[in-house]
Amino acid sequence: MRTAHRLLVAAALCFGATASAEPQEGQPVFVTLGTAGGPVPSPGRSQPANAVVVGDDVILMDTGDGAAGRLAAAGLRLDQVRAVFLTHLHLDHTAGLAGIIGLHWMNQMPGPLRIYGPPGTQALVDGIVASMAPARRAGFGFHHGYGSHDIRVDVTEIGTSGPIDVLPGVIVASVENSHYSYRPGSPEAEASKALSFRIEAGGRSIVYTGDTGPSEAVTRLARGADLLVSEVQDLPALEEIIRRLAPGMPAQAHARLMEHLRLHHVSPEEVGAMAASAGVGSLVLTHLGPAPPPDRADALFIPGVRARYQGPVTVAVDLGRY
Amino acid sequence: MRTAHRLLVAAALCFGATASAEPQEGQPVFVTLGTAGGPVPSPGRSQPANAVVVGDDVILMDTGDGAAGRLAAAGLRLDQVRAVFLTHLHLDHTAGLAGIIGLHWMNQMPGPLRIYGPPGTQALVDGIVASMAPARRAGFGFHHGYGSHDIRVDVTEIGTSGPIDVLPGVIVASVENSHYSYRPGSPEAEASKALSFRIEAGGRSIVYTGDTGPSEAVTRLARGADLLVSEVQDLPALEEIIRRLAPGMPAQAHARLMEHLRLHHVSPEEVGAMAASAGVGSLVLTHLGPAPPPDRADALFIPGVRARYQGPVTVAVDLGRY
Repeated sequence: MRTAHRLLVAAALCFGATASAEPQEGQPVFVTLGTAGGPVPSPGRSQPANAVVVGDDVILMDTGDGAAGRLAAAGLRLDQVRAVFLTHLHLDHTAGLAGIIGLHWMNQMPGPLRIYGPPGTQALVDGIVASMAPARRAGFGFHHGYGSHDIRVDVTEIGTSGPIDVLPGVIVASVENSHYSYRPGSPEAEASKALSFRIEAGGRSIVYTGDTGPSEAVTRLARGADLLVSEVQDLPALEEIIRRLAPGMPAQAHARLMEHLRLHHVSPEEVGAMAASAGVGSLVLTHLGPAPPPDRADALFIPGVRARYQGPVTVAVDLGRY
Repeated sequence: MRTAHRLLVAAALCFGATASAEPQEGQPVFVTLGTAGGPVPSPGRSQPANAVVVGDDVILMDTGDGAAGRLAAAGLRLDQVRAVFLTHLHLDHTAGLAGIIGLHWMNQMPGPLRIYGPPGTQALVDGIVASMAPARRAGFGFHHGYGSHDIRVDVTEIGTSGPIDVLPGVIVASVENSHYSYRPGSPEAEASKALSFRIEAGGRSIVYTGDTGPSEAVTRLARGADLLVSEVQDLPALEEIIRRLAPGMPAQAHARLMEHLRLHHVSPEEVGAMAASAGVGSLVLTHLGPAPPPDRADALFIPGVRARYQGPVTVAVDLGRY
């Protein structure tokens, strides 16, 4: 079974599978728990977090602030979570992990909770677990220690590893993307990586970019996928907001922020180009920068995508299922 | 100024101030960011978190999962947050602190962020800051280090300290409540305390119980307060839910959970008794256990309170302002 699925993934990566639209039973459904891009909390959209649902099982992909609550709002239970995948360790994608680990533990749900992510994930989780030592010590306030049980997590750092069998019949493959500009081989590049994931289950494939700039590796990973879930940003709109909200930002800080946004994220046109080149069946846009209300989002992002990609395109809403 | 306010607090604690209803300019407004009680994420109400707003300044009181996002949903900005107060270190009250610290840092907001809480708060924050080392190292992905600045937090553990001047004209007093059953003087009691807070500003006083069982100390703290914001639980309703959701829970675990709920939280009648004894001007119920939809909440909690307390009673909603 596992070998067959690895071959399926390999075949999909190399040759492109036939894209189909609607998920069937046993196939993964991608639930966007939070669709805002960037670290400024938004009133209308939550921070980046997603749930991949396969039957009764849930795999989280990024856990921004409030991920546990958004999971409940999506009608999913924390005890359904089998694993967490982190694309990278920027706080807007990880700030909700303490809630996932902590509430899983406090509710005495069966563990260990498996957490996969780039180098640094072990240190992230170690810090979170250490932060919970006072809560463990307090327990539920009794000398007999009720509520002071162990916090059980199991971390796997993904470097250049192959596809991971997360659950029976569910495989996640990963590539390093271009969200960071570190020179390959430098200590910075070894310490800090940003990943994109491809989930395969029941013959349906979903690629989630996480945060990335234009990337050949991501395009290859997405080849023939049924669904590409990509970040997107409209840089002129973002720059206008930044100038309005932070009019006194020093010129060098502004220039560096713009350089980061330009190089490490993707425009609608760049997303469209990746989707077209990969030949994906459909495209969902999330991690929206800026994060407009749903009735203004299509106009901001879809025309640029349309210039390059002719398949179905949807701008995600919080708690959307794709 | 500070001395005058300390005297005001002392006078209020000793003799009971005159209670008034509506907050005026310069007086604190209590915003319930999350009104669910207990660690099980709820689809309709967020985990315990609150914002005390005084003019343009915000003081957070407890930071459950998603606190940063709920703050934005309430129309408040993270850069308005001047301080965080934690009543106790159970994860349902602290899981969102990583988001507050992390997004405050990532957005390069002026610091340090001041955090006040019971013994153990330093260890909690140290763990959170340690968990962010990989994010700091990554910065925004450039060799020139943009985004790798220091994480600046300033922790004060509140033991038996007196009232704290948080901002000019804003004072927070605290007492230890009865959320834990540790024998006074035991190592467990020294390590783990649960606090209730009284906020005074512009002549308006608000007492927030955090989690507590019936408590003389809390009743004294609340004497003459304009507003008491109290936790509440309906134990029979909670027990029915627990039996339904966890039918296989071993008898001893069930007994201990029930003992915890019975001793360490308050029923509507117990809240009503504290409010009446303290002579508070009005009462808001939050940290609802269970956490019913707003249209069913009044019927669950208000009759029990009414049996003991005749003043205005409101069952809080998420993002309510009181």
